[in-house]
Amino acid sequence: MKYKDLKALFEDVKKGSLSPDEAVLRAETLPFEDLGFAKPDYHRELRKGSGEVIYGEGKTAEQIIKISSALIEKGQKNVLITRLSAEKAEEVKKEIDISYYADCRLGIYGGLPERDGKGYVVVATGGTSDLPVAEEAALTAEFLGSRVMRLYDVGVAGIHRLLAYREQLMGARAVVAVAGMEGALASVIGGLVGCPVIAVPTSVGYGASFGGLSALLAMLNSCSSGVSVVNIDNGFGAGYLANMINRIE
Amino acid sequence: MKYKDLKALFEDVKKGSLSPDEAVLRAETLPFEDLGFAKPDYHRELRKGSGEVIYGEGKTAEQIIKISSALIEKGQKNVLITRLSAEKAEEVKKEIDISYYADCRLGIYGGLPERDGKGYVVVATGGTSDLPVAEEAALTAEFLGSRVMRLYDVGVAGIHRLLAYREQLMGARAVVAVAGMEGALASVIGGLVGCPVIAVPTSVGYGASFGGLSALLAMLNSCSSGVSVVNIDNGFGAGYLANMINRIE
Amino acid sequence: MKYKDLKALFEDVKKGSLSPDEAVLRAETLPFEDLGFAKPDYHRELRKGSGEVIYGEGKTAEQIIKISSALIEKGQKNVLITRLSAEKAEEVKKEIDISYYADCRLGIYGGLPERDGKGYVVVATGGTSDLPVAEEAALTAEFLGSRVMRLYDVGVAGIHRLLAYREQLMGARAVVAVAGMEGALASVIGGLVGCPVIAVPTSVGYGASFGGLSALLAMLNSCSSGVSVVNIDNGFGAGYLANMINRIE
Amino acid sequence: MKYKDLKALFEDVKKGSLSPDEAVLRAETLPFEDLGFAKPDYHRELRKGSGEVIYGEGKTAEQIIKISSALIEKGQKNVLITRLSAEKAEEVKKEIDISYYADCRLGIYGGLPERDGKGYVVVATGGTSDLPVAEEAALTAEFLGSRVMRLYDVGVAGIHRLLAYREQLMGARAVVAVAGMEGALASVIGGLVGCPVIAVPTSVGYGASFGGLSALLAMLNSCSSGVSVVNIDNGFGAGYLANMINRIE
Amino acid sequence: MKYKDLKALFEDVKKGSLSPDEAVLRAETLPFEDLGFAKPDYHRELRKGSGEVIYGEGKTAEQIIKISSALIEKGQKNVLITRLSAEKAEEVKKEIDISYYADCRLGIYGGLPERDGKGYVVVATGGTSDLPVAEEAALTAEFLGSRVMRLYDVGVAGIHRLLAYREQLMGARAVVAVAGMEGALASVIGGLVGCPVIAVPTSVGYGASFGGLSALLAMLNSCSSGVSVVNIDNGFGAGYLANMINRIE
Amino acid sequence: MKYKDLKALFEDVKKGSLSPDEAVLRAETLPFEDLGFAKPDYHRELRKGSGEVIYGEGKTAEQIIKISSALIEKGQKNVLITRLSAEKAEEVKKEIDISYYADCRLGIYGGLPERDGKGYVVVATGGTSDLPVAEEAALTAEFLGSRVMRLYDVGVAGIHRLLAYREQLMGARAVVAVAGMEGALASVIGGLVGCPVIAVPTSVGYGASFGGLSALLAMLNSCSSGVSVVNIDNGFGAGYLANMINRIE
Amino acid sequence: MKYKDLKALFEDVKKGSLSPDEAVLRAETLPFEDLGFAKPDYHRELRKGSGEVIYGEGKTAEQIIKISSALIEKGQKNVLITRLSAEKAEEVKKEIDISYYADCRLGIYGGLPERDGKGYVVVATGGTSDLPVAEEAALTAEFLGSRVMRLYDVGVAGIHRLLAYREQLMGARAVVAVAGMEGALASVIGGLVGCPVIAVPTSVGYGASFGGLSALLAMLNSCSSGVSVVNIDNGFGAGYLANMINRIE
Amino acid sequence: MKYKDLKALFEDVKKGSLSPDEAVLRAETLPFEDLGFAKPDYHRELRKGSGEVIYGEGKTAEQIIKISSALIEKGQKNVLITRLSAEKAEEVKKEIDISYYADCRLGIYGGLPERDGKGYVVVATGGTSDLPVAEEAALTAEFLGSRVMRLYDVGVAGIHRLLAYREQLMGARAVVAVAGMEGALASVIGGLVGCPVIAVPTSVGYGASFGGLSALLAMLNSCSSGVSVVNIDNGFGAGYLANMINRIE
Repeated sequence: MKYKDLKALFEDVKKGSLSPDEAVLRAETLPFEDLGFAKPDYHRELRKGSGEVIYGEGKTAEQIIKISSALIEKGQKNVLITRLSAEKAEEVKKEIDISYYADCRLGIYGGLPERDGKGYVVVATGGTSDLPVAEEAALTAEFLGSRVMRLYDVGVAGIHRLLAYREQLMGARAVVAVAGMEGALASVIGGLVGCPVIAVPTSVGYGASFGGLSALLAMLNSCSSGVSVVNIDNGFGAGYLANMINRIE
Repeated sequence: MKYKDLKALFEDVKKGSLSPDEAVLRAETLPFEDLGFAKPDYHRELRKGSGEVIYGEGKTAEQIIKISSALIEKGQKNVLITRLSAEKAEEVKKEIDISYYADCRLGIYGGLPERDGKGYVVVATGGTSDLPVAEEAALTAEFLGSRVMRLYDVGVAGIHRLLAYREQLMGARAVVAVAGMEGALASVIGGLVGCPVIAVPTSVGYGASFGGLSALLAMLNSCSSGVSVVNIDNGFGAGYLANMINRIE
Repeated sequence: MKYKDLKALFEDVKKGSLSPDEAVLRAETLPFEDLGFAKPDYHRELRKGSGEVIYGEGKTAEQIIKISSALIEKGQKNVLITRLSAEKAEEVKKEIDISYYADCRLGIYGGLPERDGKGYVVVATGGTSDLPVAEEAALTAEFLGSRVMRLYDVGVAGIHRLLAYREQLMGARAVVAVAGMEGALASVIGGLVGCPVIAVPTSVGYGASFGGLSALLAMLNSCSSGVSVVNIDNGFGAGYLANMINRIE
Repeated sequence: MKYKDLKALFEDVKKGSLSPDEAVLRAETLPFEDLGFAKPDYHRELRKGSGEVIYGEGKTAEQIIKISSALIEKGQKNVLITRLSAEKAEEVKKEIDISYYADCRLGIYGGLPERDGKGYVVVATGGTSDLPVAEEAALTAEFLGSRVMRLYDVGVAGIHRLLAYREQLMGARAVVAVAGMEGALASVIGGLVGCPVIAVPTSVGYGASFGGLSALLAMLNSCSSGVSVVNIDNGFGAGYLANMINRIE
Repeated sequence: MKYKDLKALFEDVKKGSLSPDEAVLRAETLPFEDLGFAKPDYHRELRKGSGEVIYGEGKTAEQIIKISSALIEKGQKNVLITRLSAEKAEEVKKEIDISYYADCRLGIYGGLPERDGKGYVVVATGGTSDLPVAEEAALTAEFLGSRVMRLYDVGVAGIHRLLAYREQLMGARAVVAVAGMEGALASVIGGLVGCPVIAVPTSVGYGASFGGLSALLAMLNSCSSGVSVVNIDNGFGAGYLANMINRIE
Repeated sequence: MKYKDLKALFEDVKKGSLSPDEAVLRAETLPFEDLGFAKPDYHRELRKGSGEVIYGEGKTAEQIIKISSALIEKGQKNVLITRLSAEKAEEVKKEIDISYYADCRLGIYGGLPERDGKGYVVVATGGTSDLPVAEEAALTAEFLGSRVMRLYDVGVAGIHRLLAYREQLMGARAVVAVAGMEGALASVIGGLVGCPVIAVPTSVGYGASFGGLSALLAMLNSCSSGVSVVNIDNGFGAGYLANMINRIE
Repeated sequence: MKYKDLKALFEDVKKGSLSPDEAVLRAETLPFEDLGFAKPDYHRELRKGSGEVIYGEGKTAEQIIKISSALIEKGQKNVLITRLSAEKAEEVKKEIDISYYADCRLGIYGGLPERDGKGYVVVATGGTSDLPVAEEAALTAEFLGSRVMRLYDVGVAGIHRLLAYREQLMGARAVVAVAGMEGALASVIGGLVGCPVIAVPTSVGYGASFGGLSALLAMLNSCSSGVSVVNIDNGFGAGYLANMINRIE
Repeated sequence: MKYKDLKALFEDVKKGSLSPDEAVLRAETLPFEDLGFAKPDYHRELRKGSGEVIYGEGKTAEQIIKISSALIEKGQKNVLITRLSAEKAEEVKKEIDISYYADCRLGIYGGLPERDGKGYVVVATGGTSDLPVAEEAALTAEFLGSRVMRLYDVGVAGIHRLLAYREQLMGARAVVAVAGMEGALASVIGGLVGCPVIAVPTSVGYGASFGGLSALLAMLNSCSSGVSVVNIDNGFGAGYLANMINRIE
């Protein structure tokens, strides 16, 4: 509910241009639609500054189609569907005109917008295997309007590969550091740059990486200031936050 | 090493104003001092945009005094000492003129600066017991120049307490959400605001809170976008990052 | 053994209407049948106030059929089979006339009864992906005689969706709160209502949700009073308990 | 905010008995007081059906006194302070007339009320060492108006001790089962009674009990229906919920 | 090496019936054969009092056949192959005449021997789903010569089912208690009998059973004396130990 | 309850030598006494084959004295109090004539009995630091009547120290293997002997020993047959079980 | 960057044989090539003393081919591809002439070199199931030039099998001890030899081995000096380190 | 037992210079002494190439004195006592002439020897707080004869501090990398040097460092080759192994 509109409602009632009953009704009019199994939130664009995103995992293709259609009908120009398996993407494509990015399992309706941010976001990875998560971050930030520079396979075991890109790193407004295994990339980058570093642990690795736990813990314990962490493999969340920071004015 | 000064060095050598030996020496001159047990970093202010901070835990009072003195001698105007026990603070005060904030165990040399950021940072807590961590965050942000609004004891078990401050929350440029136990505060705030939310899990709680693990995991799994997480009880890191975001131009 | 019938037995022996040998035999007559691999409990309806439920996982279709048949022969009118895979359901259907609910993997013999409780139970979910567990809870409560109101996809990242249903929540006699990820739904609902809230963590999520552990811990640490927790994905247990509370007189 | 009073406000504005400005003010008048470090909630009695409870851990004696005083001034007749250390209790007693129960660290202002529930609550423990947690549960339920029957030291290693109290157990409207170590008490009781069983794992034990984790997991995995679990050592939460169930009409 | 034969060797050398070189050779003659990938131990029957057992998991069918053949050639009359998948069993059967027990994945060459122990072993399970592990235990004990009484589906949620078999339990020389979920069976049996109870946690369950961890911890924390624990799902180990105890004279 | 006496009761009633009311009373007469906070079990000696043991941790000195006195009054000749701190022992000694063994925190009333078992029990430790747990095991077994041979500091890092005692080990009827850190002692002994090995992980160690978890897991995964495990630091449980096995006839 | 060449560059500039611009260029010329998704490191052979190794997991066959080709073009004579699935190996073979070792999933281009180390490396395993990891270690060491002696299936449950190879063990310059389950092999070997022991925990086992965690913890807690640990199943890392130690001069 | 002397014994018996009985006695003469609570190993110097080390934790001062005395009497010239608390050190000093290093809790009898290794060992730390563990490593290596170069406070958050010491690092024969928190130091060093890196996680940190677990996991997952790991805070083990590698010839 837009509570700051409360007084306006009261004043309309005062003026007699609105009956109490209508006022209550209007106050109660919810900015979401109830599809039963889901309640998409059409006002989020205003409230949060971006379009609706559909988390595809755990939803059937049919549910994804219904939610997407409802959003598009309400005027949403771009829709991002994350964690969309190739099988479901096939189903969704029959009804909704999405582009599908197989490596990071994203579906995008309405294409990528013009990039209009002030600066750019760097997405860096420790290794080649972190690429799917990194692409999820990069495409999300691009979907939301940011320019993105990709620095892949610059892990700390060969620190000179990372140092060679110092200038690019130092020019960024936000850095997404994607790494599995020992997750040291975020700390090293955090010590080099002056902007926020968003660390994304990945489940890349084996044995005592315990599905990304080792990288997660390492990143949470980063001794570099300005580093914060999102969930394991959460490229979307990192890209979303990086764009949010990049577009601060 | 300031690698971007590399060419300047080469050119000085070319011009003959610098001998190769001197050039190597100068290239190797390190922007930190070696105290043996510690290597304080005098250039960090330039590189990272803020003053040096001393992590007090695990250092003796004597070591803290030596590092502080070295920093002050090199011209550092403000020094922040975190996790400084009351006992050590007494020792340090004999040599260095610090203010000591007992509840959050911070020592500050040189006082708090003028606040000069564009906007303000909100520091919110779930309960009263989260106050020490929240104050560490708030004072750190203030030390670094941000205005801070404190919203304490607005946990989700009484959601109306939080909703009453929606406008204040929506006006912030960054929110630090400090909570122990189930850590839900970050998600609820993350759904209300359009700025980055830095979640700080606290070790407040007992039993299955496992020293803050429950809040940590909950925050990492936040279904709200724009939320990232720092280490358990890491008020300093959150305040540092919130200030960094607040001062983006 | 019905120990309160002990004195009756003694008195029958006293009167001579029962020999000591017969008395011992009768005292030892067990209220369950021994199928070898299973010992279904025909008196549970009396003892626990409901029909027998068969936990389908880890049992073969053949075993499920044998147990169901034995129960039906003994006069059980309704049988609920939980965690029944689609494959086994096919097998069971050949012998027993069950309805199969594929999304929550329940098989029901004898149909759903009239709802006869005083009030109603609310089953709420944080997201669409929690639906299978929620349906297990809702159908279980209905199977046992409760009226159920479903509130799906009302997670805390868009708190206004939940608040819009405050009245429905406040009218419930028990609420089942089903959520994965950060599991904050239970705490927020627990702060709004005055009835017991049964929290069901789900394994929905990825990375640091660790198969539902994050939601489980968050729910156990709920700062709202009146909240208790069942096992991850245990929709059945929550629905069972909600019905038990709903029917208290 | 009492949203159901919203229409009343609108109608008062319509009638002209209330100006829009006053209406907004009144709508915004919060049902809690802001002490800065805490925001006690004076309407909780109405909303949740019980008095305010102060979680003493992590609060200073001074803070506890201020919150208690504010509550008492507002007309609260009984106040319960949980996890109150003996030292703080001494401090609090100087200002507030509380009774202190040292074994379970509860402070109670205003005494225990008349018991007025329909039935009674059983609080059972596995061993003598679980007594502090059990007393926290029992006194909480009594503070909230329930009659309580205590069955202590009836752990499953001597199952006949438990079975001897079957009738008392079967007469209860809710059972709180308090146990550490292997936590089997909840399952066995859950199999005997037809009312809700609230399981409280305790941190009693050593080694692989991992501070109550073993009992917690065991209770969450109970194969008895009607069992739900609260946090380790959370006697208060169990007593609160047991009373809530006991007083359902 | 049979070190107690050392003196015999020395004496043979003394007598001149053995040369030093031959003596060293004989002393070094190892009681195992080196197949390269495996070193089966032909003397274990003497040393440990039973035949060789082959742990089938992680071995190829070919390796199993080679080891079995080597054992049989050396005179081993019975061979037990554990954790033998159905696929490998098919392969093995082509070369070695084994009986295959599909439910517990055991292959047995040479059949089950006469039971010759003094007493009997009870194998009890909490539920029907624990049957495969229980059968592994029961067949192992039978393979090693013990009589076995099976008590399946006597879990603590219906304690009367267990109590009905008290006499059978009290007559056993060792009890194997197999249970998943909360694993309470071992504690309750441990309180009833006077013989060793070998607890086998199973991975039966879901959610917070964490693959048998909950049952494992519960069993390790058993408050009943005389209970010890083997690895999760280790029916073989339990059956082996139960037979060892059963045959003590 | 001695259920096998049930028929006797029935027959007494039949004969008229017992009225039904008295019979019920007698059947209900519980073989434990209710001290309120504890219910000591006077018949355990018969049922379990040994005297009552009091677990001292979590009980006050006063409670321990009351339970001990009640046991002694009922005719118990020996009482073992485990995990009795030095402070409580001082208190207890004022009322009960116990010997106190400070290193393993045992108090014994009535002295150690004659050893009367057939054979002997070996208690072995990996290091000197495991001694307190080992002594708890050894004294418990002696308290219950077994002869005990102590083999301390025979850890696997110097395997020849262990091998030197092979004959002693092979003569035992049960071995208690006490070890912290990597816990390998149990496996190596298990491979040498033909009797049951009871493994006791200890909390000796640091870092990744995680309070005994490393030894616990290692012992549960022992590749030697005949090894079972008790709780971390549970010397009592191991000694109890070793005696039970040692006295099998 | 070869920083020790820095002065040479400066001197060339001084002499005029190099312009400042060229010097900067040369200094910045990176010893890696940027393939976009990967940045292979052609100088590692010099820097680390061995050829490039490609970690195959998480890379597509196409990526592996591109990296291999780039390396071979630059003059790399041997390339080792680890964790190469059989499917990908088929793809790679079409383009690059590799030998594929299916059991340990290694692909080797350029064959195994002459063994030229001073001494030899022992690779020992606890059981047959540890063979794939052991072969990864052994082949890696051979690929890098070491002679390797394999001692498989010498686990501690039959300690005489290990002791029979004492002389071979004592002659090694480094031992790789590969074991799952309780991981005791490293400790026992560590106590026998005077050279470094590299412990490799394997994920062999079930239940409480928790995917190799038990062996990992046991090995980290080894009471033998000279033992260090690599990641679970990390045969490559162990073989690499063993060769590094073996070739020290 | 020196098994390679076995043939010599046999030959002496053959020659008649040794009776069989004496031969057995001599074969059984153990190279350790039995103090009851401990079995110090006088031959370890030969077998392992170094003097005996006493692990002080968990031993009483009296036990430490007895073991030290026994070692010194047998001719041991240097004795190292690790994890010796200041209190115990005071006690020990009364009997044995040790130097005590309070920061790393080492006691050394007989002083530090001449350094005689070929090269040197580097001990590096991430921060000042890691100093106690680093000193344990450095002094241990010095005690065993190695030259040690200390590089303290060179953590990855200021990577230039580490890079400034590249030459020193590259000249080492072994590097001990000591770090808490995110433990990235080992990976970065591992990428720079060509010698073995021994990683020591420390318990320095708070919150999600979980007592060193984060650093431990990070180090185990190091993507740099040549890195292996010892237990958390195990400075001794790392120094021991570094010396062992340093002295390889």
